[in-house]
Amino acid sequence: MASESEAQRALQYEQTLMYGRYTQDLGTFAKDEAARLRLQEGDTPRPRRPSELLEYSQGRCAPCRVCALQCQRFLISKVGEDWVFLILLGLVMALVSWAMDFAIATCLQAQKWMYGGLDTNVLLQYMAWVTYPTVLITFSAGFTQILAPQAVGSGIPEMKTILRGVVLKEYLTLKTFVAKVIGLTCALGSGMPLGKEGPFVHIASMCAALLSRFLSLFGGFYENEARNIEMLAAACAVGVGCCFAAPIGGVLFSIEVTSTFFAVRNYWRGFFAATFSAFIFRVLAVWNKDEETITALFKTRFRLDFPFDLQELPAFAVIGIASGFGGALFVYLNRKIVQFMRRQKTINRFLMKKRLLFPALVTLIISTLTFPPGFGQFMAGQLTQKDTLVTLFDNQTWAKQGINDEFEYLGILEAWRHPRSNVFVTLVVFILMKFWMSALATTIPVPCGAFMPVFVIGAAFGRLVGESMAAWFPDGIHTDSNIYRIVPGGYAVVGAAALSGAVTHTVSTAVIVFELTGQISHILPVMIAVILANAVAQSLQPSLYDSIIRIKKLPYLPELGWGHHEKYNVRVEDIMVRDIRYVTLNCKYRDLQQVLHSTKMKNLPLVESAESMILLGSIERAQVGALLSSQLSPQRRLMTLRQKVLSEDGHRLSDSSIRFQISTETSSGTPARPALRKPLKPALKRVPSSPPDSPPAGSTDHAGIALKSLFCANATEPTEEEMILGDKMTPAEILEWEEQQLDQLVDFSSAKIDPAPFQLVEHTSLHKTHTIFSLLGLDHAFVTSIGRLVGMVSLKELRKAIEGSLTGKGVKVRPPLASFRDSTASATEADTTALRQLWDRHQHHHMPREAGPGGDEDDDTPKGE
Amino acid sequence: MASESEAQRALQYEQTLMYGRYTQDLGTFAKDEAARLRLQEGDTPRPRRPSELLEYSQGRCAPCRVCALQCQRFLISKVGEDWVFLILLGLVMALVSWAMDFAIATCLQAQKWMYGGLDTNVLLQYMAWVTYPTVLITFSAGFTQILAPQAVGSGIPEMKTILRGVVLKEYLTLKTFVAKVIGLTCALGSGMPLGKEGPFVHIASMCAALLSRFLSLFGGFYENEARNIEMLAAACAVGVGCCFAAPIGGVLFSIEVTSTFFAVRNYWRGFFAATFSAFIFRVLAVWNKDEETITALFKTRFRLDFPFDLQELPAFAVIGIASGFGGALFVYLNRKIVQFMRRQKTINRFLMKKRLLFPALVTLIISTLTFPPGFGQFMAGQLTQKDTLVTLFDNQTWAKQGINDEFEYLGILEAWRHPRSNVFVTLVVFILMKFWMSALATTIPVPCGAFMPVFVIGAAFGRLVGESMAAWFPDGIHTDSNIYRIVPGGYAVVGAAALSGAVTHTVSTAVIVFELTGQISHILPVMIAVILANAVAQSLQPSLYDSIIRIKKLPYLPELGWGHHEKYNVRVEDIMVRDIRYVTLNCKYRDLQQVLHSTKMKNLPLVESAESMILLGSIERAQVGALLSSQLSPQRRLMTLRQKVLSEDGHRLSDSSIRFQISTETSSGTPARPALRKPLKPALKRVPSSPPDSPPAGSTDHAGIALKSLFCANATEPTEEEMILGDKMTPAEILEWEEQQLDQLVDFSSAKIDPAPFQLVEHTSLHKTHTIFSLLGLDHAFVTSIGRLVGMVSLKELRKAIEGSLTGKGVKVRPPLASFRDSTASATEADTTALRQLWDRHQHHHMPREAGPGGDEDDDTPKGE
Repeated sequence: MASESEAQRALQYEQTLMYGRYTQDLGTFAKDEAARLRLQEGDTPRPRRPSELLEYSQGRCAPCRVCALQCQRFLISKVGEDWVFLILLGLVMALVSWAMDFAIATCLQAQKWMYGGLDTNVLLQYMAWVTYPTVLITFSAGFTQILAPQAVGSGIPEMKTILRGVVLKEYLTLKTFVAKVIGLTCALGSGMPLGKEGPFVHIASMCAALLSRFLSLFGGFYENEARNIEMLAAACAVGVGCCFAAPIGGVLFSIEVTSTFFAVRNYWRGFFAATFSAFIFRVLAVWNKDEETITALFKTRFRLDFPFDLQELPAFAVIGIASGFGGALFVYLNRKIVQFMRRQKTINRFLMKKRLLFPALVTLIISTLTFPPGFGQFMAGQLTQKDTLVTLFDNQTWAKQGINDEFEYLGILEAWRHPRSNVFVTLVVFILMKFWMSALATTIPVPCGAFMPVFVIGAAFGRLVGESMAAWFPDGIHTDSNIYRIVPGGYAVVGAAALSGAVTHTVSTAVIVFELTGQISHILPVMIAVILANAVAQSLQPSLYDSIIRIKKLPYLPELGWGHHEKYNVRVEDIMVRDIRYVTLNCKYRDLQQVLHSTKMKNLPLVESAESMILLGSIERAQVGALLSSQLSPQRRLMTLRQKVLSEDGHRLSDSSIRFQISTETSSGTPARPALRKPLKPALKRVPSSPPDSPPAGSTDHAGIALKSLFCANATEPTEEEMILGDKMTPAEILEWEEQQLDQLVDFSSAKIDPAPFQLVEHTSLHKTHTIFSLLGLDHAFVTSIGRLVGMVSLKELRKAIEGSLTGKGVKVRPPLASFRDSTASATEADTTALRQLWDRHQHHHMPREAGPGGDEDDDTPKGE
Repeated sequence: MASESEAQRALQYEQTLMYGRYTQDLGTFAKDEAARLRLQEGDTPRPRRPSELLEYSQGRCAPCRVCALQCQRFLISKVGEDWVFLILLGLVMALVSWAMDFAIATCLQAQKWMYGGLDTNVLLQYMAWVTYPTVLITFSAGFTQILAPQAVGSGIPEMKTILRGVVLKEYLTLKTFVAKVIGLTCALGSGMPLGKEGPFVHIASMCAALLSRFLSLFGGFYENEARNIEMLAAACAVGVGCCFAAPIGGVLFSIEVTSTFFAVRNYWRGFFAATFSAFIFRVLAVWNKDEETITALFKTRFRLDFPFDLQELPAFAVIGIASGFGGALFVYLNRKIVQFMRRQKTINRFLMKKRLLFPALVTLIISTLTFPPGFGQFMAGQLTQKDTLVTLFDNQTWAKQGINDEFEYLGILEAWRHPRSNVFVTLVVFILMKFWMSALATTIPVPCGAFMPVFVIGAAFGRLVGESMAAWFPDGIHTDSNIYRIVPGGYAVVGAAALSGAVTHTVSTAVIVFELTGQISHILPVMIAVILANAVAQSLQPSLYDSIIRIKKLPYLPELGWGHHEKYNVRVEDIMVRDIRYVTLNCKYRDLQQVLHSTKMKNLPLVESAESMILLGSIERAQVGALLSSQLSPQRRLMTLRQKVLSEDGHRLSDSSIRFQISTETSSGTPARPALRKPLKPALKRVPSSPPDSPPAGSTDHAGIALKSLFCANATEPTEEEMILGDKMTPAEILEWEEQQLDQLVDFSSAKIDPAPFQLVEHTSLHKTHTIFSLLGLDHAFVTSIGRLVGMVSLKELRKAIEGSLTGKGVKVRPPLASFRDSTASATEADTTALRQLWDRHQHHHMPREAGPGGDEDDDTPKGE
């Protein structure tokens, strides 16, 4: 675990600094690790091999064994290859997916069996129907809560944040993996309207992280952070791919929900792993004799020759637009429920105490309402999610001739028929009830996604429109010789893609439905509906995942939105923070102290001098703290004291001085470490305005001793030496000594400085800044002008600027007349002036003016132009 | 054209400097342009409106007209929106695509009609068969050559380069558009094995560029360079999308072939425009009564219930692997043909003279071989490309019972049957002949792509495997109760996707075939084959487009390849150029001159001083040249002379001095301009090692006057004033004056300096450097260490390093023991030393040492640690 946290630490630096030299730490670490492993291997098994070979060569099948050994060695050398990793990942995920599906099916079967077996007594039936899911959900919530609370929820928002470069602690560990797999199985086995797709993205990512840690035992390559990010991106694709057996849709969906910029070179990884995974997942079904051959998960059998009429397109467009509004409403509802729970203090306090009550209560309500002999009969309550989808995608028209009995409802289709009502009423009730149920159920603290419930609701809505169309045009619209009846199942497919696309803000749900149904004949209606749904939903609400990111206060950068042009006109100079604190190369420790107290920035710019303001690098706040604390550390004070004493009375303390020397040596490195070693707090608790390692605000006054307690980890527990010698210095003396120390010039040689922090210029547009920030996963950038530091932009300013310019009513970031000002002249002037200043400074300070004819000409030059 | 070149110039800067302040130029330009347009508009039509309204309001339908006017105004205000642009683009491209298809079909029909009408005489038939395509191809080649040679070829390589940020001149103009559309129509109408897909990407991009220039008449937004790049990316998707009526595949294919990093926020644009375009394209077919409703272009009717057996998968894998080798061979063959043509000097000289002979000759050979009564009967020569595909994707099994006649070859299927041969022979001959024919035909200098020919060959190969399988297992492989026969058409689909995927190195051909055939049932075989084909092809050859990029010497950055790990270990310090020339802030003009002569770098770093080496910015070579030339300009010399004369003998020259003054004013800005205004040379002619604006190497010796002639555009044609006063200075005097001038300190205030050039640190890995270069489209970056310049990396070094590490036999960029050296210690030391130097310098130079107690402590500090 120690080496893991070390690697994590290194990884975090890597991410924050991007161009910093901490790459080196990681590289060195990986190299050391590899060397260590090589040595270990060299120590134990290697020397044995020749003897083994000799032994075997005397046996009969020696060539075979030599061959096997060579194969083995070849395999080990190949284990570092990407494709081995991807195949393993695909295989493991397919197995996990299949096993979970099997377990979930068994759970659902058990519920059905219980419910069916008790059909003599409605009360008992109700008890069984309600208790079973409640127990499962409660267990799932409790188990997850105890083992790994990080496993709660979808996981896609967290993966998006991780792929952006932020390290979220404990999100990719074995514990979370176990919690998520078991929690998800139970949650889905309960029959609640929950999905497995989001959690599968998370599970696949954890699987990739664990697998790469496991494979790193064979070689050092898996320690590389760039590679890990690439593999995580592939893992997300695998997650969706093996969940729906939809490799292409999986890759695209995972790109859309997790990335802002996508490296095309990662593309094949995703396709390779997702295809392999989907293949194994479906082959398992064939081997299990569920299927005859590999086919789609929800195979449809719509006619091929005339899938839809051109004149049906308006109906598909209506589905798209309505789904857009519905999707936005779903996201809104989901967020409001969470916010309501948080804001109502009584509820909140109550729920905090009894954490499992809320899941149990929600499950109770939902399962009561779906109880088939009760209200459930009006909403096909007895069908599982899978059965619902199968029936909704059905080939036949339910309402062909109204509600008459000519049409036979076979098998599970029976659920949609109600003797005292018609199929339209059932569908409407189903949609309305499932809508709020899904929005509510996805707020339960269990591992669960919202994709599948939304997909089902969309399918039902599409079916409703389709059945209406079929009732309206019983013989189809086409007026030519052939009669092509309307296929309501096609409408259901369109609706499913549109609503899920609207909620997640993705277009690739279109591809997912083609792969799920095995038919692509409705491609145009699906595309039209999905695009319209996206257009409507994106202009109303953020996507469900972005909404969760905001609720959880994860660091994020909002999208620029559709066609807002102001962003091209806003420039960095309009949004940057001009009044920033900095550290100069020739500053004193007192200045460091002031800077630390006056700002909360996590990264401080290091400039040459306050006059030149030339940016040299960036130094972390923690490093500055460490510098200060090591300067004021009791150890140093004692050292000084010792030296003074030593010079005063010769050799009296000579033996104890050695003791001091040693203890100083060992602990002098420590004060710098705690700040470094400190594991990242889970980002959930991170409030943007107060970085975790800033000192509390109250400590500003008590400079000397208070500061010591702030920065020295061991200041509260004084060491023996300190006790001995600390007595010899009065507090007044200590303060005086500290004041002296603070007046010294800072020695930066022990501090880690990022020598190339990212720089922008004042005139960079907001659009470009956004692009660069999301491309490189930055969280701050310095604004420079010919080497001089003039400002700084962080994620916060950028977010404010974008959201301000997007909502229109938010912060107006730009002076109203900004777009009319003539910035060329002023800016060039400013730059020139700055340059001139620099130049003049050099003229006067660095280079003594040369006497001679050149000197005279020098004054003429400006005049000459 | 002037404003266009200006915009192009601005755009080019924008691209090169990325973070430079030239954003501003563009912004200002766009703003000025908008203001100009606003003014223009305000001058002429605006004032009329109120009166119009008044006039109309007296009419009867006044409210209508007011409403119409408001609508119009609303529309104009909306015209800046992205979606309006995308719809227009989609519409135009769909119309272009449909019209071209119609024209091509007519051409092909005409050939068939001629050939059919002359069936009495074989010789006449042959003449007609051969002459027709030869004339068309020759016309196409000649027309393109005359109107716009940039229209030749596929266009995808150029688009990839343009989207990387390089400006290629004349590639997106109306002339090229016309040449490409007409040239392509003729080329495809000839029936040669050429494709329309690549050119369509180019056509769509040109269409987008023209459309945005057209729409910019309504508002200033279309001038924005970031937006233009986004729109070009969407246009590429439209190109593929409306060519195959495959919106999803089009978007993905265009992403794969043109981008290295893709902005997910552009995703919807591509989908939106491509869907709309594909929709219109297919709707036009319905309105034209070609189709009953919107369906796939090459619709297949394979059975849905059991598309393929699990045991057929090895056959599909074989198709994939063989296609991989075939694809690599195709790319190799294509390149070799081009190189052979170039290297053979006699051929080359001959072809240069008679440019149209080569196309005519190739067409003659190919059409002779496909002549149906001749050799063409063994290779289905009478079928057009479209008919070939339709027959290959056919539902039936041709060789069910060998070659017996039980199976009826209906209609065009007839072409595949030969009385004296069987279908296998026909297929093999077809594949072999078409393979080299396609590779040869795509080198003809007409607008043409290679996708479709390769697609057809792949389909034929797949069909061959499928027919073999069908002959081998006449009753299918499945052993259960039902007999499921093998579907050779499915194999054809798999083969088409695999071979085209291998040639283009894309996975999305899989999606394209689903959309083309309208069936997704073979998803797994297709995915497996495509991925295997890609794996094989990518390890053997670059993609066809990358191959063309290399042949045409366009600037490019090679991909990192599959799973090569060395790239994680190589660092910037291993590949960077350490010995770089720089410009210091306090340098003399003589230094500038030396720097210009000693290096060919296009961008020179500007450092504070030679001792500190603090990087302040980057200055273009042309700017340095401009500075020098303005310093040594005859005008300045005359000015000096005039002033001397003026001071010598009072007011004698007073009237002519005014004349000089004016002429100096007007021409003083000029020397800087020519280098700037100079239109970019077509990149085709650009040789990487000699940048276009570097002085010829021979001029190094004649410093003074030679330099003048290099940098002053008007030095060769001396002005009147120069003639008058030049006489008064002897060449010796001029040289002396120039020597004096060169000793002056440089005044940078008039030079344009990029104040924030991109910086890396020494320890950045090659992998990360590659990522950053391709992310940001850089072509050079400076390597800094705590503000100090230590080296530079350009595209060239990066390319060498990657290709070196990829081929294994190339440049070894890293010292053999590099991975074992302990770089932590040394590097940190180096940094520390540098920092210390800086610090010391500041101690001694800038800040006078403070007297007092602090001074004493200062010396203790280092000892204390």
